[in-house]
Amino acid sequence: MTVRAAVAGASGYAGGELLRLLLGHPEVEIGAVTGHSNAGQRLAALQPHLAPLADRVLAPTSPEALAGHDVVFLALPHGQSAAVAEQLGPEVLVVDCGADFRLKDAADWEAFYGSPHAGTWPYGLPELPGGRAALQGSKRIAVPGCYPTAVSLALLPAYAAGLAEPEAVIVAASGTSGAGKALKPHLLGSEVMGSMSPYGVGGGHRHTPEMVQNLSAAAGEPVMVSFTPTLAPMPRGILATCSAKARPGVDAEAVRAAYEKALAGEPFVRLLPEGQWPTTAAVYGSNAAQIQVALDPAAGRIIAISAIDNLTKGTAGGAVQSMNIALGLPEELGLSATGVAP
Amino acid sequence: MTVRAAVAGASGYAGGELLRLLLGHPEVEIGAVTGHSNAGQRLAALQPHLAPLADRVLAPTSPEALAGHDVVFLALPHGQSAAVAEQLGPEVLVVDCGADFRLKDAADWEAFYGSPHAGTWPYGLPELPGGRAALQGSKRIAVPGCYPTAVSLALLPAYAAGLAEPEAVIVAASGTSGAGKALKPHLLGSEVMGSMSPYGVGGGHRHTPEMVQNLSAAAGEPVMVSFTPTLAPMPRGILATCSAKARPGVDAEAVRAAYEKALAGEPFVRLLPEGQWPTTAAVYGSNAAQIQVALDPAAGRIIAISAIDNLTKGTAGGAVQSMNIALGLPEELGLSATGVAP
Amino acid sequence: MTVRAAVAGASGYAGGELLRLLLGHPEVEIGAVTGHSNAGQRLAALQPHLAPLADRVLAPTSPEALAGHDVVFLALPHGQSAAVAEQLGPEVLVVDCGADFRLKDAADWEAFYGSPHAGTWPYGLPELPGGRAALQGSKRIAVPGCYPTAVSLALLPAYAAGLAEPEAVIVAASGTSGAGKALKPHLLGSEVMGSMSPYGVGGGHRHTPEMVQNLSAAAGEPVMVSFTPTLAPMPRGILATCSAKARPGVDAEAVRAAYEKALAGEPFVRLLPEGQWPTTAAVYGSNAAQIQVALDPAAGRIIAISAIDNLTKGTAGGAVQSMNIALGLPEELGLSATGVAP
Amino acid sequence: MTVRAAVAGASGYAGGELLRLLLGHPEVEIGAVTGHSNAGQRLAALQPHLAPLADRVLAPTSPEALAGHDVVFLALPHGQSAAVAEQLGPEVLVVDCGADFRLKDAADWEAFYGSPHAGTWPYGLPELPGGRAALQGSKRIAVPGCYPTAVSLALLPAYAAGLAEPEAVIVAASGTSGAGKALKPHLLGSEVMGSMSPYGVGGGHRHTPEMVQNLSAAAGEPVMVSFTPTLAPMPRGILATCSAKARPGVDAEAVRAAYEKALAGEPFVRLLPEGQWPTTAAVYGSNAAQIQVALDPAAGRIIAISAIDNLTKGTAGGAVQSMNIALGLPEELGLSATGVAP
Repeated sequence: MTVRAAVAGASGYAGGELLRLLLGHPEVEIGAVTGHSNAGQRLAALQPHLAPLADRVLAPTSPEALAGHDVVFLALPHGQSAAVAEQLGPEVLVVDCGADFRLKDAADWEAFYGSPHAGTWPYGLPELPGGRAALQGSKRIAVPGCYPTAVSLALLPAYAAGLAEPEAVIVAASGTSGAGKALKPHLLGSEVMGSMSPYGVGGGHRHTPEMVQNLSAAAGEPVMVSFTPTLAPMPRGILATCSAKARPGVDAEAVRAAYEKALAGEPFVRLLPEGQWPTTAAVYGSNAAQIQVALDPAAGRIIAISAIDNLTKGTAGGAVQSMNIALGLPEELGLSATGVAP
Repeated sequence: MTVRAAVAGASGYAGGELLRLLLGHPEVEIGAVTGHSNAGQRLAALQPHLAPLADRVLAPTSPEALAGHDVVFLALPHGQSAAVAEQLGPEVLVVDCGADFRLKDAADWEAFYGSPHAGTWPYGLPELPGGRAALQGSKRIAVPGCYPTAVSLALLPAYAAGLAEPEAVIVAASGTSGAGKALKPHLLGSEVMGSMSPYGVGGGHRHTPEMVQNLSAAAGEPVMVSFTPTLAPMPRGILATCSAKARPGVDAEAVRAAYEKALAGEPFVRLLPEGQWPTTAAVYGSNAAQIQVALDPAAGRIIAISAIDNLTKGTAGGAVQSMNIALGLPEELGLSATGVAP
Repeated sequence: MTVRAAVAGASGYAGGELLRLLLGHPEVEIGAVTGHSNAGQRLAALQPHLAPLADRVLAPTSPEALAGHDVVFLALPHGQSAAVAEQLGPEVLVVDCGADFRLKDAADWEAFYGSPHAGTWPYGLPELPGGRAALQGSKRIAVPGCYPTAVSLALLPAYAAGLAEPEAVIVAASGTSGAGKALKPHLLGSEVMGSMSPYGVGGGHRHTPEMVQNLSAAAGEPVMVSFTPTLAPMPRGILATCSAKARPGVDAEAVRAAYEKALAGEPFVRLLPEGQWPTTAAVYGSNAAQIQVALDPAAGRIIAISAIDNLTKGTAGGAVQSMNIALGLPEELGLSATGVAP
Repeated sequence: MTVRAAVAGASGYAGGELLRLLLGHPEVEIGAVTGHSNAGQRLAALQPHLAPLADRVLAPTSPEALAGHDVVFLALPHGQSAAVAEQLGPEVLVVDCGADFRLKDAADWEAFYGSPHAGTWPYGLPELPGGRAALQGSKRIAVPGCYPTAVSLALLPAYAAGLAEPEAVIVAASGTSGAGKALKPHLLGSEVMGSMSPYGVGGGHRHTPEMVQNLSAAAGEPVMVSFTPTLAPMPRGILATCSAKARPGVDAEAVRAAYEKALAGEPFVRLLPEGQWPTTAAVYGSNAAQIQVALDPAAGRIIAISAIDNLTKGTAGGAVQSMNIALGLPEELGLSATGVAP
């Protein structure tokens, strides 16, 4: 099977990562690459690392440009996917890397995004309980946010096994590519290097309801989430430090056993040997997630930590993994669990 | 008054920062600089940034070398301060940047450090309630750990005002200088750059009981602390993200008011204007701390965040500030609240 | 003497560094701080590291705002200084951190800057032969460019002593603050971190004629300069690697002797001990320059390397040093030769 | 064809990169992985990014461990390859990533390495004139040094076309992985981040004679090389800024034409469009090299700049590329020209 794939929003970081992965996918042929303000420019200038695509020219994001593909990846600003998706036929697999179709609760969407809810698509996190079944044969996929991916991988085993109280406290550090390519003063290299800073403090980050949705589904009850994202001086990577009170009687062995069981057989998510901790460097440029968990006996909390590459497993890699499942291809095709380190 | 000061352990990062600050202190004359394995070497090679001291040669850390000073700063590995301090007369001000004399509870010391407790000295955090009074005229000072400094500055106002439940969850990111100059593989530049990683997860970090001690004193009841430190790809700085459940009825205005009141008049600790968040870059190389606080209404938690320079306010700057108080000098002498940025 | 100083262009990196240094200058009182597009904003938001000036509000850059000062520092985009300077009386010391008055040759100016030449002011590099005399009592100072400062300090001793052929090859690496605060895609943290890249290759960089001017003056004959700047993943610092063929008969001892003699007594420029090489980290945030020199016997070239902080010795520190000389203050007042490291 | 490959020296950075690439090579099966001081340890701890090999245990580097492979890669410290290679049969392809067999001139070897010359093997730079022919069918390959790779790719077209005078001046910046995993104080993250520094100044770097060898072969006459390496605050990448005087009458068109002709058809080396400059970020983790060239009319010099990943094209990628040629496999198999960016 050769799949013809288009990427809408090819000049941004998510679009660039999609193209990088699709270039290495043995069953994908890259079709249209489109953009908005950069339409007409060559990829050589916009994505100089994509040497094999250097001479490709961005088309405007339009129904004409996107027609004739088996798969269309949308890497557009939040709120723009619905209009484009509408014009793509039901036989086309549409994989949306934006937020538009992630949330089930319309009120949540409206509260956090301030616009009408566009709907809900099958959610592209195969590691969720029932996650793969929901994607098989689907023609619409909502790729999870990068933080919800990292947080869900870290905490799902604890909640699915009923080990943790339903109040999670999460502090995550992200590389700057998570903030995109928009020109903002605080994203300048001079400001970022040598600096850690928080943002979206106090519950306002838009990824919060998505974490609530995933963790609550696993727990079978509403989970309250306190989420603080921070910006770290590195281009890629998320380290999510997640904790929740352990339920009475839960001990370290029970925690370890639950994580071993939950993550056994996962192709990309790996529970590290005891005593070893995740590093974002180890998953750089890969679709891998590293997980480790501990029980703090004095504080009575389960501490679960994950490291992913925000652009790969957190966005484009997750998108390709879900595409593979939807199309009936081997789930790991075109994806690597090997990080680029040091 | 001219104060003659010695620095024991002058080849490490804390020792180097002490010398950097003392060089700019108008009432201090730098006397002996001592080391252990590096004794006999010139500072030009060991601390090339200390140009005015380039020709100084490290003496061995001995009673003879340290004799004849008004102040002796100890920047030694944990567990070595007591033996050196014993040989210094009671008229000498001894400022210990190590952990040896920080903890009041001998059992805590033994549990976390695995050696007999050496004692407890007045604690060099002037911003603690009663902190300055405890230091005035003292001849022995235990400089706080870098993480406890950052965490205490962030959470003391909440606990002192009775706003928070006595269970704090803290995730802090530190620059690599906090790990010292010891040659360990995970501290190589190739490993550190582009990477975030946790360590000491699960309650084992030695700074935890010190946080418990400070927060409990402010709260008037035992505060449980879950603390996870992470290593960030930057040489200096700590960003501490601290949270605790708000007591019933506490609202955002009460939180803001408590912080404004608690931090008013502090020369180095600054509550940022609402909407602005701390960055470690803004306090780089300075004795300043930036604080911000928010109430997350959905999660019901107070989120307090601080940024300090781990080597300055977190170690050497805090030491000099406390020395100033102990000697009756103006508290801000030789210290700057201006960061080196960008 | 208390000097009242204004800073025009206080929202940029050069302006921020001027304010940082002036805050620590014992004879300076900071008067007006002005800006253009940021007029009306508080420094707290624009320069969050300048804690003591947090509540200052930027005035528009106008004759009214700048009136009534003893010294006015201009940190404006190239080409804007002349118009502002014109409106300041001859009794005011005007220190221009821009390029407008650096070049003696009007044709060079026009070729590299594309606008009419505004004139030539005394050049603020005290380490030039005759440099201090030219500044004493002057009311107008043109602060050198950051690269010409680094390159001149490295090569002047060789040319002044007649050791080198008049063709210099220079490759310099600069931190990103040298490119300013303008929002350009290639300056985003995501692009800069982990990357080295050249720019202005082939002789087009505007600092080239200034290097030619300085080196030719020292050599007493025209020196041809090949200059390639590169952008390094760090916020501050310049490392300039400069070389030229050694004149026949020149040996390593002669080179060393010339550098020792030329740099003896310089308060901020230090020839390192043999075998030790400059690092930008060692001069971070300081007005110091580190210099080292070697003779490559096989290639027959003198290799001279300097490290400075582009914002301090390369801009704002050099400006304050020259101001001190012009006003008859001690040259080192308010400036430090101690870097902030690690 | 399935090729069974062993990697000796699998715990270092070159060994780790070899394994990363071989994991993605469709015709290679990874056999023995060996080490010296780390023998007996699992790769999970030593190379945590190599998730698929996590459970592999390092064998000691011995003839027994290395027996039974089609290809043996040596990633050993300089001087250790000959003894290991001797014990491998002539039918085994031995690819040495060390320096031992790179130099043709025994006197050069002895002058720069201080030990007897072990011999000369076919040189693994396919892009050299005649480079591919020398590798086809060969059973011994000397992989070039990382700097000579970058410099040769940049300057070969100029010398092969007779455009440049035989005196080259080269300043190159390297990421820290080029210095290996040895625990040295100046390689600590705290020292490296935010800092540029030179080393091996004055002609002493061991890669210098290898550059001379390659450039002289292309020029048909001895080329003198002045080479200054610098350490940059990034884990990977080399940016080589190379220049030489243009021969009389050479103009920009001639230079461009020579580079276009020389690099046409190269699968991994790409001459960038005019006006675009190489960045190390664009080739991160890939086997690609970016090249650009300019003529500086005022200085009369050709400036040629290359960017490579020192571990990939500069070591392990070059090794795999040469292995492919030696074995008659497609040259690009298992290698990517797509960088991991941002």
